[in-house]
Amino acid sequence: MTSLLLSRRDLDFLLYEWLDVPSLTARPRYADHSRETFDAALDLSEQVATRHFAPHNKRNDAEEPRFDGERVHLIPEVGEALSVFAGTGLLGSAMDYEAGGAQLPSVVASACFAWFQAANPGTAAYPFLTAGNANLLLAHGSPEQIDTYVRPMVEGRFFGTMCLSEPQAGSSLADLRTRAEPQDDGTYRLFGNKMWISGGEHELSENIVHLVLARIPGGPPGVKGLSLFIVPKVLVGADGSLGERNDVVLAGLNHKMGFRGTTNTLLNFGEGVHRPGGEPGAVGHLVGEPHRGLAYMFHMMNEARIGVGLGATALGCTGYLHALDYARARPQGRPIGAKDPDSPQVPIIAHTDVRRMLLAQKSYTEGALALVLYCGRLLDEERTGASPEDRARAELLLDVLTPIAKSWPSQWCLEANSLAIQVHGGYGYTREYNVEQFYRDNRLNPIHEGTHGIHGLDLLGRKVVMDGGAGLRLLVETISATTARAKAAGREAADYAAQLDEAVQRTVSVTERLWGTGDPETALANATVYLEAVGHTVVAWLWLEQFLAAEAGSEPFHDGKRHACRFFFRHELPRTGPQFDLLESLDRTAVEIPDDAF
Amino acid sequence: MTSLLLSRRDLDFLLYEWLDVPSLTARPRYADHSRETFDAALDLSEQVATRHFAPHNKRNDAEEPRFDGERVHLIPEVGEALSVFAGTGLLGSAMDYEAGGAQLPSVVASACFAWFQAANPGTAAYPFLTAGNANLLLAHGSPEQIDTYVRPMVEGRFFGTMCLSEPQAGSSLADLRTRAEPQDDGTYRLFGNKMWISGGEHELSENIVHLVLARIPGGPPGVKGLSLFIVPKVLVGADGSLGERNDVVLAGLNHKMGFRGTTNTLLNFGEGVHRPGGEPGAVGHLVGEPHRGLAYMFHMMNEARIGVGLGATALGCTGYLHALDYARARPQGRPIGAKDPDSPQVPIIAHTDVRRMLLAQKSYTEGALALVLYCGRLLDEERTGASPEDRARAELLLDVLTPIAKSWPSQWCLEANSLAIQVHGGYGYTREYNVEQFYRDNRLNPIHEGTHGIHGLDLLGRKVVMDGGAGLRLLVETISATTARAKAAGREAADYAAQLDEAVQRTVSVTERLWGTGDPETALANATVYLEAVGHTVVAWLWLEQFLAAEAGSEPFHDGKRHACRFFFRHELPRTGPQFDLLESLDRTAVEIPDDAF
Repeated sequence: MTSLLLSRRDLDFLLYEWLDVPSLTARPRYADHSRETFDAALDLSEQVATRHFAPHNKRNDAEEPRFDGERVHLIPEVGEALSVFAGTGLLGSAMDYEAGGAQLPSVVASACFAWFQAANPGTAAYPFLTAGNANLLLAHGSPEQIDTYVRPMVEGRFFGTMCLSEPQAGSSLADLRTRAEPQDDGTYRLFGNKMWISGGEHELSENIVHLVLARIPGGPPGVKGLSLFIVPKVLVGADGSLGERNDVVLAGLNHKMGFRGTTNTLLNFGEGVHRPGGEPGAVGHLVGEPHRGLAYMFHMMNEARIGVGLGATALGCTGYLHALDYARARPQGRPIGAKDPDSPQVPIIAHTDVRRMLLAQKSYTEGALALVLYCGRLLDEERTGASPEDRARAELLLDVLTPIAKSWPSQWCLEANSLAIQVHGGYGYTREYNVEQFYRDNRLNPIHEGTHGIHGLDLLGRKVVMDGGAGLRLLVETISATTARAKAAGREAADYAAQLDEAVQRTVSVTERLWGTGDPETALANATVYLEAVGHTVVAWLWLEQFLAAEAGSEPFHDGKRHACRFFFRHELPRTGPQFDLLESLDRTAVEIPDDAF
Repeated sequence: MTSLLLSRRDLDFLLYEWLDVPSLTARPRYADHSRETFDAALDLSEQVATRHFAPHNKRNDAEEPRFDGERVHLIPEVGEALSVFAGTGLLGSAMDYEAGGAQLPSVVASACFAWFQAANPGTAAYPFLTAGNANLLLAHGSPEQIDTYVRPMVEGRFFGTMCLSEPQAGSSLADLRTRAEPQDDGTYRLFGNKMWISGGEHELSENIVHLVLARIPGGPPGVKGLSLFIVPKVLVGADGSLGERNDVVLAGLNHKMGFRGTTNTLLNFGEGVHRPGGEPGAVGHLVGEPHRGLAYMFHMMNEARIGVGLGATALGCTGYLHALDYARARPQGRPIGAKDPDSPQVPIIAHTDVRRMLLAQKSYTEGALALVLYCGRLLDEERTGASPEDRARAELLLDVLTPIAKSWPSQWCLEANSLAIQVHGGYGYTREYNVEQFYRDNRLNPIHEGTHGIHGLDLLGRKVVMDGGAGLRLLVETISATTARAKAAGREAADYAAQLDEAVQRTVSVTERLWGTGDPETALANATVYLEAVGHTVVAWLWLEQFLAAEAGSEPFHDGKRHACRFFFRHELPRTGPQFDLLESLDRTAVEIPDDAF
């Protein structure tokens, strides 16, 4: 039976027929690997996700974590699934051997993770947050910190969180208040409240490693005064033994519309519920240097942002496969013009509007998957590219694409999930079917790890202007290489190339026009529309790439890629026309309306 | 304090400054009414909705109806609210005096109902379904049926349902199987299963009056063999006394993503659980003539469709008001360019992207409200217009607008609710706030009463071509009257008029082009895109109408109307450009992809 989680055929196409991932094995870091080891990791992921994650996805939603005032209760399947997962070694799949990892390329590790995010995003969030936490410490922690905290995380004994937001400070990190008082022994004592902390409390692991942004008194105000601390739930001795309970306590759980399987918490630090050594405050260990916390955290956040895009994509993909399965099985109605009500009904996939909704889902979800895997491939290039120039180019391109890789799947794979409901009709709106949960779960993705609007500001306000516009130039150059190939690949590809070239040209000209005003308010008032127009342009490029890669194949699958590309160029890319017009007009409608006129 | 349910200021504007509803009081049917009686009905609605409906909206969602195998349990507040509602007489507000109604204009009754749909759609659904049921019987039932069933419904003692769908037949009514066997005494016995029946079982009323589509054996196949029956839950004697339990039993409840406060049921008819008079089958009474059931049901369905549009609008409006309230109160971040992190934060309404999201919500929700109230006004014109020609024109225009009045608010007020979540950030995604429920509740509206796709087929396949295209011509003529006025009303209005004229012209030309093919498959493959393009065109027209009506006012409110109109013409109407292009191209992408290529 074909999986309803992800299309392995599509993953194989993207990894092997398009991104040529096996060529990475020529590089020293991946020398032990081969297509066989990649396939084995993908097989294992599919198997564990299918057997241990998917079966409790619904129950995870229906019986969300409950706090009885002392303990958080989760359904037992979560812990069972996570101990199977820990046994696979997948958590460290892309990490260095010396950290206990398997040195798989990131692009393969991403494809592996997608199985779990499709099967059960609530349960999958625990190890993915842990992996992000571990990667940050591997990059910026001391050798002792890595020994003490990272190794147990890779082994699945400790879990990790990231603690940025506070109740009064979400998007505005400059306003974080949690403070960290230095102690004579070199540790710190933390005091403050952290909000929206996923995985902030549970009994799934021996310990929880919180990475916390806080201020050392006397430091600069704003984001320049933020430092990063390890604050374990349970103190860890020099020999790795678990000691006293640290003063981090759960103040309450947030009750979400979706993504309910992951505890989402308000945590209090240093409120005196526990007093390690009898002293007030939660014991914290500084990571790296003081006041550089946000820069370190960005290491984790960039990874998390692409992870959010990947998660949104995985939900979109599974929704599409569910809708397709339903559309093939559900008889309803007759072909247009069939007059005889006694004639047999057709499966709804025969109806053109259902086909349109399926094709839209295919174009959104497979376009998004291409985007997030391309980013994974860039990460590998950044790490192992042949020359410093190659590596720098990959890093720069990834920087430009990150806000899009986070936002585009969050917007369009949510739309795909809405269409999946629509294909199911009334059944899709009920909890007896799966698609309504995908839609609720996916609605989180445009909010966390920087809202949709924040990523617009990141793209227009930072990424396309940094280094004198080098990032945008590189993106244009990269897309132009594709359109040049496409122009030599036959009339249809050449038509799409021309359409794409125009969108790229408009991207460049509206960027110049917006910043040419010298008026950041007007420029940035248009940031979200800009993000959406450029996002569609980028995904059109990746569809053209897939169209070209599919030319080598002759299966119905390859034909499907061509049709989905057509759909994207006919139905989707033209949406950017009015968006570019609006950007060109330097629209100020939202700026001009007076507050009392709303 | 300003209500967060609806803007009374906006209702007053639409009813009194735009639609000139008080002028209706010159007509005999409304002679007893005045602006004062309209205001009193609106005040009463706001008050009852605020005090008795809104407070249990969240609980209605959290503690959905539960079936213990024998009885359905609802939270007690539902029954309490509905008995207060029954006491107001609002259920029959637009009905004839002789039916126990108040003969309010439909447009005013709609505005009254919107308060309840904004406050608590789950509880409000019971009386609204009942009103639709009663209106159908008033139009097509016998005097005895009206006496026996309608009067107790208007008094709030009986509730009503509409029973169309079956588990195997949703959109395809031709495939309904429930059968009705004629009896010697003139009654029928029904056998079959009905699915998705809202309000199908509860103990809120003394009785439930099911209106059921079923087949009399020997009749024609398909929709032409459907007859309509009254099937009461409890049999009613000639004197109105309640008798035996009829053989209609609850087989189960559907568990929905939203709209949880309304029981949604699978009902079995004639399964022998109860046997009235010892005989098998559920006792039913034929309404009107045999085999004309669907035509009668359309009476209720057309009303229900506009009701769905109104409900979607009400949820959009309350979501907007919640988002606006939050945006004014939540401090976060600083103006662009403010470098000092110690400077005070601003409320998020100061951020341009938040303003954009608020303005989009305003343009969607107030545009939708104008649309559904305009339809209410047409219903009044259809009923009381000065000449038969006026009445026929109103009926025709309402026919054309009905699929749009159902679909456009369902699509765009859902989008407004998504933006309301986005304005709230992480808080909006939690059940501690209200907006996530609006979003879940509103997601039903593109599905029930005909899916979004079905309304595309209705508009393109029926409404714009019937009577040789008379409906479309009338719509064009009506919009052109507005643009003619706008051209004389200053430069800005004239610009919008020109933009709108073009969209109207394109509507006409793509309609001709699609049908000019002589190929219904290609034409109808484009029906949903057509629906969406024409929908945006119609709402742009109603925004231009509001722009013109606002010229007479000088409050900040009127300024807000102008800004929202600007937003719609700058950000929204241009979306139709690529849609019309696509329609012009006779797109067949979704038709051409082979089944095995998905």
